[in-house]
Amino acid sequence: MFIFVLMTKEALIAQIRQKQSFLCIGLDVDLDKIPQYLLELEDPIFEFNKRIIDATHDLAVAYKPNTAFYEAYGLNGWKSLEKSIDYINEKYPEVFTIADAKRGDIGNTSTRYAKAFFENMNFDALTVAPYMGQDSVEPFLTFTDKFTILLALTSNKGGLNFQGLQTDNQKVFEQVLQQSKTWKGADRLMYVVGATKPEYFKEIRKIVPDSFLLVPGVGAQGGDLEAVCKNGLNKDIGLLINSSRGIIYASSKKDFAQKARENAQELQSQMSRILHKNQ
Amino acid sequence: MFIFVLMTKEALIAQIRQKQSFLCIGLDVDLDKIPQYLLELEDPIFEFNKRIIDATHDLAVAYKPNTAFYEAYGLNGWKSLEKSIDYINEKYPEVFTIADAKRGDIGNTSTRYAKAFFENMNFDALTVAPYMGQDSVEPFLTFTDKFTILLALTSNKGGLNFQGLQTDNQKVFEQVLQQSKTWKGADRLMYVVGATKPEYFKEIRKIVPDSFLLVPGVGAQGGDLEAVCKNGLNKDIGLLINSSRGIIYASSKKDFAQKARENAQELQSQMSRILHKNQ
Repeated sequence: MFIFVLMTKEALIAQIRQKQSFLCIGLDVDLDKIPQYLLELEDPIFEFNKRIIDATHDLAVAYKPNTAFYEAYGLNGWKSLEKSIDYINEKYPEVFTIADAKRGDIGNTSTRYAKAFFENMNFDALTVAPYMGQDSVEPFLTFTDKFTILLALTSNKGGLNFQGLQTDNQKVFEQVLQQSKTWKGADRLMYVVGATKPEYFKEIRKIVPDSFLLVPGVGAQGGDLEAVCKNGLNKDIGLLINSSRGIIYASSKKDFAQKARENAQELQSQMSRILHKNQ
Repeated sequence: MFIFVLMTKEALIAQIRQKQSFLCIGLDVDLDKIPQYLLELEDPIFEFNKRIIDATHDLAVAYKPNTAFYEAYGLNGWKSLEKSIDYINEKYPEVFTIADAKRGDIGNTSTRYAKAFFENMNFDALTVAPYMGQDSVEPFLTFTDKFTILLALTSNKGGLNFQGLQTDNQKVFEQVLQQSKTWKGADRLMYVVGATKPEYFKEIRKIVPDSFLLVPGVGAQGGDLEAVCKNGLNKDIGLLINSSRGIIYASSKKDFAQKARENAQELQSQMSRILHKNQ
């Protein structure tokens, strides 16, 4: 199944305003954690995702499967990933889809990854690691209807090991933000900034005032939504707040989809309040 | 097919001494570049790899498929990758196998990638991007019979964009080398250092005198074998020199495997001379 949906920044913003939500749900499926009765079905990963998506699509503006969880199950995992993205594109074409794959390689090789995620699977966006520099990222940016989400400041403890190193005038992650702004196709760049480091959002917004930030780490990792929004919001809202475990594993019983909806609803309500306050 | 082969650093060194070669062949299969008669077979990617491997296994100590080339072909590509690694493990178990996947994510997610490449597919080593720091890399190092090859200084033009930034006392890539030495399981770390930057090998060897370096960029990318060896060799040899396009696409005709062998032979002969000179 190949469905072509053009996703623009304007469409994403419109969706956020309409749903009063900037929630992204991370589809990081672990067969040990999903309700065990699903394991009897032919494709438990897809069946789990389908139920989560159906229960939350009006509350979330984006879904973000992390490819590691699918690759860990080999060919079956890849099949489930393909089915999941096809399902979203077919049933909820307005929703923004992110392959959280953290790829990046020399030019011609990055093009291959872009083909895998932007063409074979029709994701709207892909996360990319910046370590290899400009010519490793620009191949992704040549896909004019797609978005590249560059790792800037990640939510994990070791995130600052290298990202936080002080260079002449800026930290490494600030250099990533600054330099990448000049790259070809930079208007289709977004950035990953962890919710666990809200104190950095002010400085980050000075460098990339207009860009969307994908913010993981709210919930299980301890990040605080209000603190992130305080300095992270911009005129276009400009934030996608991701929650994975806090939503998809809200229950391990038959009511998992309903409980996921309730937890998504709680975040969406908070977001709605924040949006009203800022309008 | 699951064949369990324990690979140690000592076994790798012994293989190098026996074959008088530290050649790694990059299996970056592009269906547009392989002999077109192979496309009639059921699994052209695997059939191409099989013939290249059979023709070169006595001249090379390692094979390195870059996952991007397989992912670009979707499920079929993943099947071909699985078949290729199984084939090497079954037929040439002494050979060192590297999944050039440049993965890396927060802790529990990196464990998933490790499972994908070290368990589901039985690779000996995986390339990993260091941008997310210590806790994104250590999960790979908990696999005691496996090796993690950390990107340090890559061969591409943009490699220095961030890797080359000067921090207080070291460049970023030197910080990657230095800091990673203290991580748990660091004795199973190797590093990617591009052949296109031979002037850096002296400084790199001061920081990681004992580590193996995986060196791409000889051949198509313009790197020079002699220049790399001059400062890159250590007491254990300590280098794996990768060539991809220069070997596997030596011919696009029916003689492609023979021509690949000839080009591999030429590199192996140079390596043999270098080893004799340095012993």
